[in-house]
Amino acid sequence: MDGTHSTFPDCVQLVRGADVPVAVYGARAATVVNLMQSDMPIPQGWAFSCDTVAKFHRSEFPKEWPVADALQKGRLFSLRASPIEREWGGPETLLNLGMNWDTHKALCEPLGKSAADALYFRFVQDYATQVARLDSEDFDALIDKSMSANGVDYGHALEMSLALFEQETDVAFPQDGTTQLRKALRSMATAWNGASARILRSVRGAPVDAGLGLIIQEMVLGVGQGEFGSGVAQFTSPVTGEEDAFGRYLSQSQGRDAMDQSSAQFLARDPRGPSLEEICPSAFDALKGFVAQARDVYRDEMQLEFTVDNGAVWILDAEPADRTGRAAIAIVVRMVEQGLISRQDALMKIDPRNLNEILHPQIDPRAKRVEIAEGIGASPGAATGKIVFSANSAVASEARGEAAILVRVETTPDDIRGMHSANGILTERGGINSHAAVVARTLGLPCVVGAKDIDIDQKNRLVRLPDGSQLVAGDVVTIDGATGQLLSGAPKLVEPELGGDFHKFMNWADETRTLGVRGNADTPQDVRLAQAFGVDGIGLVRTEHMFFDPHRLTVMRELIFADSPADRQDALNLLMPMQRGDFVEMLSLMKNQSVCIRLLDPPLHEFLPSSRDQVVALAEAMNLPMSKVNARIEELAEFNPMLGTRGVRLGITVPEIYEMQARAIFEAVCEIKKSTDILVFPEVMIPLVSANREVELVKARIDAIASAVQSEQGVELDFKLGVMVETPRAALRSHDIAGTVDFMSFGTNDLTQMTYGLSRDDAGRFMREYVRNEIFPEDPFMTLDVDGVGELLKIATERGRSVKPGLQLGLCGEHGGDPDSVKFCHDAGFDYVSCSPFRTPIARLAAAQAELEKSSQ
Amino acid sequence: MDGTHSTFPDCVQLVRGADVPVAVYGARAATVVNLMQSDMPIPQGWAFSCDTVAKFHRSEFPKEWPVADALQKGRLFSLRASPIEREWGGPETLLNLGMNWDTHKALCEPLGKSAADALYFRFVQDYATQVARLDSEDFDALIDKSMSANGVDYGHALEMSLALFEQETDVAFPQDGTTQLRKALRSMATAWNGASARILRSVRGAPVDAGLGLIIQEMVLGVGQGEFGSGVAQFTSPVTGEEDAFGRYLSQSQGRDAMDQSSAQFLARDPRGPSLEEICPSAFDALKGFVAQARDVYRDEMQLEFTVDNGAVWILDAEPADRTGRAAIAIVVRMVEQGLISRQDALMKIDPRNLNEILHPQIDPRAKRVEIAEGIGASPGAATGKIVFSANSAVASEARGEAAILVRVETTPDDIRGMHSANGILTERGGINSHAAVVARTLGLPCVVGAKDIDIDQKNRLVRLPDGSQLVAGDVVTIDGATGQLLSGAPKLVEPELGGDFHKFMNWADETRTLGVRGNADTPQDVRLAQAFGVDGIGLVRTEHMFFDPHRLTVMRELIFADSPADRQDALNLLMPMQRGDFVEMLSLMKNQSVCIRLLDPPLHEFLPSSRDQVVALAEAMNLPMSKVNARIEELAEFNPMLGTRGVRLGITVPEIYEMQARAIFEAVCEIKKSTDILVFPEVMIPLVSANREVELVKARIDAIASAVQSEQGVELDFKLGVMVETPRAALRSHDIAGTVDFMSFGTNDLTQMTYGLSRDDAGRFMREYVRNEIFPEDPFMTLDVDGVGELLKIATERGRSVKPGLQLGLCGEHGGDPDSVKFCHDAGFDYVSCSPFRTPIARLAAAQAELEKSSQ
Repeated sequence: MDGTHSTFPDCVQLVRGADVPVAVYGARAATVVNLMQSDMPIPQGWAFSCDTVAKFHRSEFPKEWPVADALQKGRLFSLRASPIEREWGGPETLLNLGMNWDTHKALCEPLGKSAADALYFRFVQDYATQVARLDSEDFDALIDKSMSANGVDYGHALEMSLALFEQETDVAFPQDGTTQLRKALRSMATAWNGASARILRSVRGAPVDAGLGLIIQEMVLGVGQGEFGSGVAQFTSPVTGEEDAFGRYLSQSQGRDAMDQSSAQFLARDPRGPSLEEICPSAFDALKGFVAQARDVYRDEMQLEFTVDNGAVWILDAEPADRTGRAAIAIVVRMVEQGLISRQDALMKIDPRNLNEILHPQIDPRAKRVEIAEGIGASPGAATGKIVFSANSAVASEARGEAAILVRVETTPDDIRGMHSANGILTERGGINSHAAVVARTLGLPCVVGAKDIDIDQKNRLVRLPDGSQLVAGDVVTIDGATGQLLSGAPKLVEPELGGDFHKFMNWADETRTLGVRGNADTPQDVRLAQAFGVDGIGLVRTEHMFFDPHRLTVMRELIFADSPADRQDALNLLMPMQRGDFVEMLSLMKNQSVCIRLLDPPLHEFLPSSRDQVVALAEAMNLPMSKVNARIEELAEFNPMLGTRGVRLGITVPEIYEMQARAIFEAVCEIKKSTDILVFPEVMIPLVSANREVELVKARIDAIASAVQSEQGVELDFKLGVMVETPRAALRSHDIAGTVDFMSFGTNDLTQMTYGLSRDDAGRFMREYVRNEIFPEDPFMTLDVDGVGELLKIATERGRSVKPGLQLGLCGEHGGDPDSVKFCHDAGFDYVSCSPFRTPIARLAAAQAELEKSSQ
Repeated sequence: MDGTHSTFPDCVQLVRGADVPVAVYGARAATVVNLMQSDMPIPQGWAFSCDTVAKFHRSEFPKEWPVADALQKGRLFSLRASPIEREWGGPETLLNLGMNWDTHKALCEPLGKSAADALYFRFVQDYATQVARLDSEDFDALIDKSMSANGVDYGHALEMSLALFEQETDVAFPQDGTTQLRKALRSMATAWNGASARILRSVRGAPVDAGLGLIIQEMVLGVGQGEFGSGVAQFTSPVTGEEDAFGRYLSQSQGRDAMDQSSAQFLARDPRGPSLEEICPSAFDALKGFVAQARDVYRDEMQLEFTVDNGAVWILDAEPADRTGRAAIAIVVRMVEQGLISRQDALMKIDPRNLNEILHPQIDPRAKRVEIAEGIGASPGAATGKIVFSANSAVASEARGEAAILVRVETTPDDIRGMHSANGILTERGGINSHAAVVARTLGLPCVVGAKDIDIDQKNRLVRLPDGSQLVAGDVVTIDGATGQLLSGAPKLVEPELGGDFHKFMNWADETRTLGVRGNADTPQDVRLAQAFGVDGIGLVRTEHMFFDPHRLTVMRELIFADSPADRQDALNLLMPMQRGDFVEMLSLMKNQSVCIRLLDPPLHEFLPSSRDQVVALAEAMNLPMSKVNARIEELAEFNPMLGTRGVRLGITVPEIYEMQARAIFEAVCEIKKSTDILVFPEVMIPLVSANREVELVKARIDAIASAVQSEQGVELDFKLGVMVETPRAALRSHDIAGTVDFMSFGTNDLTQMTYGLSRDDAGRFMREYVRNEIFPEDPFMTLDVDGVGELLKIATERGRSVKPGLQLGLCGEHGGDPDSVKFCHDAGFDYVSCSPFRTPIARLAAAQAELEKSSQ
């Protein structure tokens, strides 16, 4: 029967070389056959194809079927799910199938009656729960009722369990193995099609029509007189990736029992307690060998599920070894160095998203999480600290050397100082691209936003939780910026460790990728950070962030309150040298690399205070009557600031600001050229354009400033001028604009907002519900919406390059750090992506993978 | 020389049959040749082509050139602009060219010295001003200085004028006619290329490279011994279009002098004063004949400029007679009835925009306008009234029978009651699609928004004007919603008169057009209005407007403040019958026609009050603590409401509201079907979709409600379900959505906002500047942006109909009342446009014209 189908349609015996394609029989069936390549001792088994399982209600077992025969002969089997991809899950494994009074009787001799009772009871409970859908707890209760001074009386428990089964189902517990199997198969097929299973797997990427394969294997019992037991083993540390035994073994157990019980033994010799290595050294050695064999088969570190049968090791299943992001890197680097896999293989084996973990502290995977609320994970990493409710308190905490979590309904530019001081940020409002989220990512600060179930009462300095309890200032909490959880207390954190493996691995990515990866940086400090992360340039300098420093903010406000052109010019004259200083520093740091500087973007009211106290303070500082301050604030207020007088509209209506900024950039270039031999590559970017005429107007003014500075300073200026494409119209009219500019950089945050008609700051209200209900497959602010926004990028690329084939195209914004979006940009022929420095390693790896995928096509 | 070029390049003599294409020689040259068809007495003349004028600085007059000869012989000429289109303007006409001491001497005999002096003086002043660019007022002053008991001593004035000329220019006044002509030609070419002339004509639609032709004609002096004079005449009333003499004549005058002077005579016999008909009956009769001839030539009522030369009439120019919109209709209808033009010609002759005037009171064109501020004309028509600062005051004014202009910084739904009572609306903020503007257009109420130079102080109930003065409550003002002007006092208004001509004309349009024209209507009252305007259906029922009635608003707020699903349902149960009642009435009224009902669109916070007083009142009315009311308001507040939780997002997150609305619609249909034999065609429209999954979800719920109502009531339901396409993404993914729906209606207001990234409420700040500087060719909220938004409409149309060829496509929103946008929709293959009832006649005519243009291609 080697490799051939049994008579039962689409049921194939699992033997060496059997043809069990994953797409037909699922991953677990394929694994068993793969492992057989190396002659591992594997119980004999059969695989049911997805199609067979789906149509099983219409089938019958054939008359002469080895499994049926074996069941008749009293052999026991396990029935396991074999989904196409392991992460799609599937019904729980059913062990000991075939158990009945006959097999019980047969087992009494080798195992002893109590052990046979226990096995039979276990099967009744599992079958009742998984197949007949009775309540598992009712059976647990029978164990309690059977407790005596000598421990559990399983014989009593078994009898009660059979009675309970009959009472609940009105039929006696089935004694026929094939009946058990038939009902179990049907039950598993039904469970697979249940609503919750479907939702669960679709979240993990399963298609709507995902099928379920099953495998049936002869049991190796794991119990008996002598050394019997079961366990799970990998020989690599899940935390560091170093070679190290990791797993558990439990004598007299089945399946994955060892993983759940504190009485389980270690695998290798361990000072903390007994181990398999000591209990049964030969089994330990054999297991080690099998893990190494599996590693050779899969070219990956594997975790094996095994059973010890009177000292002999049987292998049941293998899957990739557990690992953190850091361990994953260490593993692939080691495998490359050992010649087991190529560098390309190594690059393809790491999910870029896992790099997030490496770059930030994480909650120890083994630590207990007490969730008290949930929001949107907006900036990765975990942080523990005392709750503070204001930016000032965060600054004070830092001064005292105390870790603080800044808790705000939402953050504003006034909070930036406090955000620098805090260890993490939690907000009640806002989405993945709210102010808090964007700043936090820039700072590499863990952040949870839009925790809308909590009620932050800033005034009374308390947080009302959904359960009615409260948190007050000083309470210690932990946020997990990856999962969006707010946790009670201080679970253990694991610090990031960027070792040599990380750098080695990232170098391979850099050698492979063709797409540029730049960092977003708003200050010289950010530029240094970006450089430390090995970027190819700076893709976005948001010049407005330079004005939030208190002294500069005052001058900026003087500009806004200036009554006459002369007063306005005075303020600009103060701001210009400050900007120039920034640019000198940033451009000098980024020698030989491009720096893309975006001219002022936000509406002017963002520079004005929002609270009454701050307005009073401002009036005093400016020596202006409150009425005037309020009038100006009211005058600048907007219904929809996102769609208001910002970006190039500001540049056209208040041209002095862009002129000042252009001068600052050009004078900075001159200063560097005159005093050093550093080569600088400034790029000037105009934000929020929607018509080419806007670009022409601003370009004319910038060119005029360039000419003026050139002749004043006697230095030749070389710079690129381009636009940030953030409106659908700019994308649609790319062919108009391309002729006027050297480059376009897609601001996909805003472009997404406008394409969907969706404010990133207000989307938090419904985005979770939308994604949960699959109305949007993903949060489009997290992963580029290829169908809508991506369509605009493609249109813009095609139309722009049709006019100017060499048009430089980039993407700046958080999508630049999302692997799928990076792949899209690579495939669309962009020159680079740019994101916050902390996400650039993700982009670099994603770019390398995109290149490998493309060249393998 | 008949029709052939003179030796001077591109200068052609104006004789019968001469080849003077408008594109080469301009409109006035063509007019002269056209008029010659009917042997009118026209002074001989020549035309310079645009090209000649542009390059004149490089040319010289040829040696033997009839004009030069005539100048040498002492003949006088007029030099007039002949632009390609008359509305592009051009330099002022220069009369009496060739005047010098010799001609002066020759004229002394026939005219008398004083008249010759006056003519010469006039020429010196005109030449000095128009050619040498001296200050006209300096010459006016010479007249004052020459005033004596016997009147003006022109001899003295002439001498002083020649001296002044020489003093200012350092050269003597040129005595050589060809020199005068050469300099005048150059000066006119220069003036044409001046900045202000270019801006002026580009506003009127001239291309950047628009050229200027010139014509030079022999003077008929208009002065002399006997009956001499000049004037302007048309024989149709500019107000009503009826046959009536209209114009002025002034003895002893030239050019258009008669139009400027109160001493001018009437044309026909008139009780108010002397007339040409009495002074010189033969000239009057001749003139009447010439006007009739011109009418036959042009197939239009014409206005002639004429000169009487010793009792003989000479014709100088002809242009379409002045007319209001109402007169224009009367004229074309009369011409059709007289068989002079076809109905198609009549339809093409009326600019749809002019219908605006017909439908609203207008300021009498002859009334004096004292402008005190300028804003954006947001809803046409003129209104006079006393200033009121609150909705309540407007209601009180109405109760007193006083006309009121409601003056608000901006309006909110709370003001709607007051807007109903007011005669006109003026706001300081907001753009063409602000709340005030949209409501005003729906109500057919004149409205000026975004008058940002004024400062409305609601608290102190006063308006601060740019000049420092103030208006207070009760001051009488007038607003012109077409021009955007705020005028002082009460200029005379002309009431609209929709006579039989209007209906006749609109019927022709309806017989011609293929594009449907629907009206937007939010209440049964609106539906009646739309019907009165002869719509093909209702294209947009904004159901939220039904909730602003005070009683309903209270229930709506109860819904918003409901703590439990049960409370929420209680509120919905109250709202449902109210909505059902509306729908019964609206659907019954629109029998046999479609009614497109949009499910709730605005974010819920729009139903909550904004001022503190109103919040207090609400808390009292709801019997809720202020803190709770404020908390809910804060909770619902959004950063960018336009991009927030509204439309289908609300429908998905609070499904009960749409379910209630769907039930109200379906129960209304059942009620009508059970009690009448009226056929109703309801269309249910889902707003603000961006993904097909949203549509599927809502459709499933609506279909379920339909099934439920169907079986409850035993009535078969027939309805269409569709979406409002307002996001760029919905347009781009039209092929996804088309499969789910029966129709799509483009909400181009919001689509424009999102395509440009431009809030209509905030655009007022910079839109005027943008349009003035031609950054945007038009305000895209007024006229559809064909290049950007139109591109999305085309993409959506193509992709949607590729999946469902019969997909019904419409446009709802104010663009539906803009002629260019209507043409776009017609050409794109839409089924209908829909706009506020007052604008539907414009749409109907524009649709007819689009059809005629298409079929003439």
